[in-house]
Amino acid sequence: MYTYVKVKSPATLANFGPGYDVFGIALEKPYDIVELEITDGKSTIKNVNYDLPTAIERNVASYAAMQIFDRFSKGINFKMTVTKGVRPASGMGSSGASSVGGALCAEKVLGRDSDEEVIMAAAQGEWISSGHAHADNVAPCYLGGFTSIVSLKPFNIFKIMPDGLKVVAVLPDVRVSTKEARKILPRSVPMEDAVHNVSMSSYVIYSLMRGEYSNLRVALEDKLSIPYRKKLLPGYEDAKRAAMENGAVAFSLGGSGPTVFAIVEDDGINVARSIKDAFMEKGIDSKDYITKVGSGAEILSLE
Amino acid sequence: MYTYVKVKSPATLANFGPGYDVFGIALEKPYDIVELEITDGKSTIKNVNYDLPTAIERNVASYAAMQIFDRFSKGINFKMTVTKGVRPASGMGSSGASSVGGALCAEKVLGRDSDEEVIMAAAQGEWISSGHAHADNVAPCYLGGFTSIVSLKPFNIFKIMPDGLKVVAVLPDVRVSTKEARKILPRSVPMEDAVHNVSMSSYVIYSLMRGEYSNLRVALEDKLSIPYRKKLLPGYEDAKRAAMENGAVAFSLGGSGPTVFAIVEDDGINVARSIKDAFMEKGIDSKDYITKVGSGAEILSLE
Repeated sequence: MYTYVKVKSPATLANFGPGYDVFGIALEKPYDIVELEITDGKSTIKNVNYDLPTAIERNVASYAAMQIFDRFSKGINFKMTVTKGVRPASGMGSSGASSVGGALCAEKVLGRDSDEEVIMAAAQGEWISSGHAHADNVAPCYLGGFTSIVSLKPFNIFKIMPDGLKVVAVLPDVRVSTKEARKILPRSVPMEDAVHNVSMSSYVIYSLMRGEYSNLRVALEDKLSIPYRKKLLPGYEDAKRAAMENGAVAFSLGGSGPTVFAIVEDDGINVARSIKDAFMEKGIDSKDYITKVGSGAEILSLE
Repeated sequence: MYTYVKVKSPATLANFGPGYDVFGIALEKPYDIVELEITDGKSTIKNVNYDLPTAIERNVASYAAMQIFDRFSKGINFKMTVTKGVRPASGMGSSGASSVGGALCAEKVLGRDSDEEVIMAAAQGEWISSGHAHADNVAPCYLGGFTSIVSLKPFNIFKIMPDGLKVVAVLPDVRVSTKEARKILPRSVPMEDAVHNVSMSSYVIYSLMRGEYSNLRVALEDKLSIPYRKKLLPGYEDAKRAAMENGAVAFSLGGSGPTVFAIVEDDGINVARSIKDAFMEKGIDSKDYITKVGSGAEILSLE
């Protein structure tokens, strides 16, 4: 048993093209820093950079940590600080990063080491923010690389490490609520669209396992969620066209948006600028992250 | 330019669980033998073992061959013989085997060597039998192993060779028309079923590429076609239960059926018998093939 732990938990892009609710990829940046200290006093949660819930049962990071404590060491009190690097409601897995950070802090401070325990607790944390316990952000955030959910019960997630995959993520200064973005999706979809995504998601796996990243130009094309969700994001098609014209390999939406991302083979500078310019033409400011696939959550300190 | 060619083209199992219209796998047996001889007389087609069309524009094998001749060497006449080893309307890619056999004979007799030409001509041959030009049988029949269709135009198919994968296929003595089996499918499907198949088809690719065949127990579970099509095949669920209780790794339907198949790790004898027994309890006789993934079409003679 330890008394202090500090972890880093990165942004993620869920869905990764055709893998709605299934695929996700970890980025190197941005990331959250979560610290937990065991205390004799009352449990508290402090948020840095964004105004987020300060009740421990309503904050995703502390809620996720409590899933671990309640299961393995009931009655522990803690002081938690979440320094947000990932903007909330960004489509970059902000709540997932905080959930993983919280759950991982609890797991480590107890001296435990189970992937399943951390991911399942963090998936519960996601429930707080989206009304839906899901792991398509928390799995890559924790494990790193690219992940695909086979099932949560039983726990079955596989990981591929697409070494060196270069990603440009651009976060426009608009808000898309995950709940709203789920509501806009139809309950049923044309069979041919389902077949399309079966084919493309299979091609994603094949291409990532073989390191054939240029295939993603075709493989990332989605028909299950983006055709509906892109309506929530003015400028999506313009940004895609601009990115592809400037040498992007592929372009898609991060989770439910508004973050968009491109896969690139060059330094990504032109692609990032062209996407930002496209949003600016709609009067939308944006922030770009020229980054790579990341190795997942990391323990920075454990005392 | 040659004057005589003889090829062997194997049975295939399309869909392979969650990959409706996308996946397919080649078997070692059964197979068709297709022979073609250039002639000065009129083109003819002869079928051995089954009563199939004898008009060259209506027989899948000769029609597929004509796609190649019409494109590259118009006016050639041929005598073709198709010795059927794959029962028509079996769900084992019977028309696909004949189409590939016909197209490959034409390609080879002309001294040509293009995967795309053979597969596209054979896919056209499929149109004759099913009213739908598709490649989920002809691609594995020609290329061998496991194949996944990304798109036909542009031509983009990938192959995985799951070495040593053992398959028990059982063909019940009932008929299922491919056209009927397509009609029974709904035009739209629940989003959650589409997401399920995206997840499972991804897991199929991952598992085959890593040689983790035991994963197929989970990964072959389909929600897009089998839940509808199994109604056309009395005894499907009984046969599945019997196979799994007797040690099968996974169980599914070949194409639109009636062939069912199991993945096995042992010699497959008990699994084959248990499936046959299950059908027999419904009063249905059946034939079993204890076989393996195959290496695709083969040229037996070229003169």
